[in-house]
Amino acid sequence: MKMLRTDFKNMLRDSVGRHGLSPAELQRLGRRAERCLAELKEERAKGRCPFLNLPYQKETAGEIKRIDRELRSWVKDFVVLGIGGSALGNIALHQALNPPYIGGHESPRIHVIDTIDPDLFDGLLKSLDLRHTAFNVISKSGTTVETVAQFLIVRERLKDSLGSTYPRHIITTTDPEDGDLRRLAEREGYRRLFIPKGVGGRYSVLSPVGLLSAAVSGINIDELLAGAAGMDKRCQKEAMEENPAMLGACLQYLSYKRGRHITVIMPYSSALEAVGEWFCQLWAESLGKKSSLKGKVIHCGPTPVRAVGPTDQHSQLQLYMEGPFDKIITFVAVERFKAQVEIPQSPEANFQYLSGHTLAGLMAAERRGTELALAEAGRPSYTIYLPELSAFYVGGLLYMFQVQTALAGKLFGINPFDQPGVEAGKAHTSTLLGKDKGTL
Amino acid sequence: MKMLRTDFKNMLRDSVGRHGLSPAELQRLGRRAERCLAELKEERAKGRCPFLNLPYQKETAGEIKRIDRELRSWVKDFVVLGIGGSALGNIALHQALNPPYIGGHESPRIHVIDTIDPDLFDGLLKSLDLRHTAFNVISKSGTTVETVAQFLIVRERLKDSLGSTYPRHIITTTDPEDGDLRRLAEREGYRRLFIPKGVGGRYSVLSPVGLLSAAVSGINIDELLAGAAGMDKRCQKEAMEENPAMLGACLQYLSYKRGRHITVIMPYSSALEAVGEWFCQLWAESLGKKSSLKGKVIHCGPTPVRAVGPTDQHSQLQLYMEGPFDKIITFVAVERFKAQVEIPQSPEANFQYLSGHTLAGLMAAERRGTELALAEAGRPSYTIYLPELSAFYVGGLLYMFQVQTALAGKLFGINPFDQPGVEAGKAHTSTLLGKDKGTL
Repeated sequence: MKMLRTDFKNMLRDSVGRHGLSPAELQRLGRRAERCLAELKEERAKGRCPFLNLPYQKETAGEIKRIDRELRSWVKDFVVLGIGGSALGNIALHQALNPPYIGGHESPRIHVIDTIDPDLFDGLLKSLDLRHTAFNVISKSGTTVETVAQFLIVRERLKDSLGSTYPRHIITTTDPEDGDLRRLAEREGYRRLFIPKGVGGRYSVLSPVGLLSAAVSGINIDELLAGAAGMDKRCQKEAMEENPAMLGACLQYLSYKRGRHITVIMPYSSALEAVGEWFCQLWAESLGKKSSLKGKVIHCGPTPVRAVGPTDQHSQLQLYMEGPFDKIITFVAVERFKAQVEIPQSPEANFQYLSGHTLAGLMAAERRGTELALAEAGRPSYTIYLPELSAFYVGGLLYMFQVQTALAGKLFGINPFDQPGVEAGKAHTSTLLGKDKGTL
Repeated sequence: MKMLRTDFKNMLRDSVGRHGLSPAELQRLGRRAERCLAELKEERAKGRCPFLNLPYQKETAGEIKRIDRELRSWVKDFVVLGIGGSALGNIALHQALNPPYIGGHESPRIHVIDTIDPDLFDGLLKSLDLRHTAFNVISKSGTTVETVAQFLIVRERLKDSLGSTYPRHIITTTDPEDGDLRRLAEREGYRRLFIPKGVGGRYSVLSPVGLLSAAVSGINIDELLAGAAGMDKRCQKEAMEENPAMLGACLQYLSYKRGRHITVIMPYSSALEAVGEWFCQLWAESLGKKSSLKGKVIHCGPTPVRAVGPTDQHSQLQLYMEGPFDKIITFVAVERFKAQVEIPQSPEANFQYLSGHTLAGLMAAERRGTELALAEAGRPSYTIYLPELSAFYVGGLLYMFQVQTALAGKLFGINPFDQPGVEAGKAHTSTLLGKDKGTL
């Protein structure tokens, strides 16, 4: 069976000259990374890092499939209300694994509404037939202001148009014990799903947070979890060349330490654009930290940038080729697309060089051309090859990125699971809304 | 009449402490920027920088409106085939100015296909009824490999299903004199639109490149151009406080020189996300340059990052608050949304702080809370206020960003109109495709 693999020769000095890494320094860091991996395993054994065990939730998967079967008998539109970690994974899975145009797709339409933009929300509500719409309200804490606002509006509209049957249209996904939304859901009799204790938003895509909308959209969640479980095995190996998460963490960490503070993720696949967006949250929120675990002020954190090939060859590539030596690029290549799309013979002499090629082949040639040109310009990059866009491989890819992030957190010496920096903005917003005064 | 305005107090030391700019250095740079503006005016008078005159193309606008009237009698789907500067402006206008959900929208559906992803392209073609579809093939050079490949596929499908009437379904937008595609279009009798000489892709949104799909999608292109013309007047003023393009160029340039190599554009509006994407091309491709105009190797270029509020408060904000002091943020605020969307009273005590607010008000409170928190953490930002999302103001915003980019190019001492760095990748791709050998 084919596997996800990483080609990192263009990260090394042999390919990119002085801006590259030396095999020796990579090997040295590998020994530190082995210790980080050992720590992670210990923490896992003690019940910490529960996101690592998400691939093995047989019961939860069964429950989600039951809910899905019931929903698809009457639901035409399935709306996820959530933001950040309660939305990005859902969007990533849906975009990666479902057809880009609706024709012939039998499942409900999926809408992931990760904003309170009034024009967007108003437009959405006007476009829905509420009798055939279900809402999945996702908030770990049950107090996320955007999600609560969305929920209050939707609940009123449902009550107004459906009367007492409205609870059937809401499924909440929350912490199993805490939170205002959880209590409310229990009281009003909604269906409820729970996020395992200790699984944070950006590590929750393989929990009920991501699984319900995935199942409803037609994704095989058993395959998704099987791919993640397979990747779990690989991410426990101590040899860097067998463990793609450890390899990625080391390449990224070393590059940052050598002044490449920007990390671009650039899939050559439109379907993986949102995986890039999801990765940007995972990486930025996990590693962007003021303080080290030892309490030292370090203000660390790579800035992730999402690009997509070949589109961004016509947008960002000029900067990547000629700008400051402050970035590395992670390409994600899909080895086999579902469609090939032949480019027909053309009577025009100047276009004949395309004859006999396919769009899939052209994509690959453009990616390889870009990799080569960047390497020649001294710009490091590496490529993750995904055999195909199936639930199995995408599940593995997401799991790999999560383990890579946890390991990178250890290399950076920070806590990759908290986000203390976002509280100040929330406090100001609350004051502006008059929450503290209980008025306005 | 309300106008676009910029609030930059959070860029200054008084607000953000030592990471801010001093009014004195801004004033000093202002004098240099005045000279840059004078140069730009001279170049314009000599017929260079023709993008500056795009707001005044009465004849072109008339022609586009005629084509639009004819098309909307039979077209249900309007597909733009283009990439980079031939796509991003189209997407930006469409997303900014048309309703996010189709219900009640009388115009043809717009698809801007800026990729050759085979799964996406195959899905699109299968979803279309070609009898009611028009394709706008946009390529300045007429040789862009992605666009030519798209065109060859589409032309064959059209011929196969429609026979000799197929040329009615294609409109090309190209250079008026050069290029394979232009010649082919003339020979086969397609409708043709032309990009004024000297207008490069990323400065072409207000040329026929952006205007045709805008008109077809229902946008008032006269208003769009009027807004740009109004902004042209403001961007000719010498006083920084009256000229938002000059102010933006100075804030960005000074920040870069002080080590903030990343510039985030973060509209608090889902409709403006693609304007952010468009800006990222404009800024990266214009300013990311190896060599100065004097031939010195400088490897300069800020890295633009596109974020959106409030969504990215739950994704990127942690990094912006606590990570390295290597970035500034440009917020774009919409002062009046079309919808307000009231948040209803809630019987739950913990949610009552939201009662009486609207989603529009919550958006504003979240933006202001984020601005304040960033300033307190010593993180510079500034906010562009757009009175509303109308063609007039969006036309002005895009024009302003273009002038800002041209002025920033002068401050950086580079050519903001070329993109020499992307040729190497194209050459490698051609070789891989066997173009040079004329085989494969």
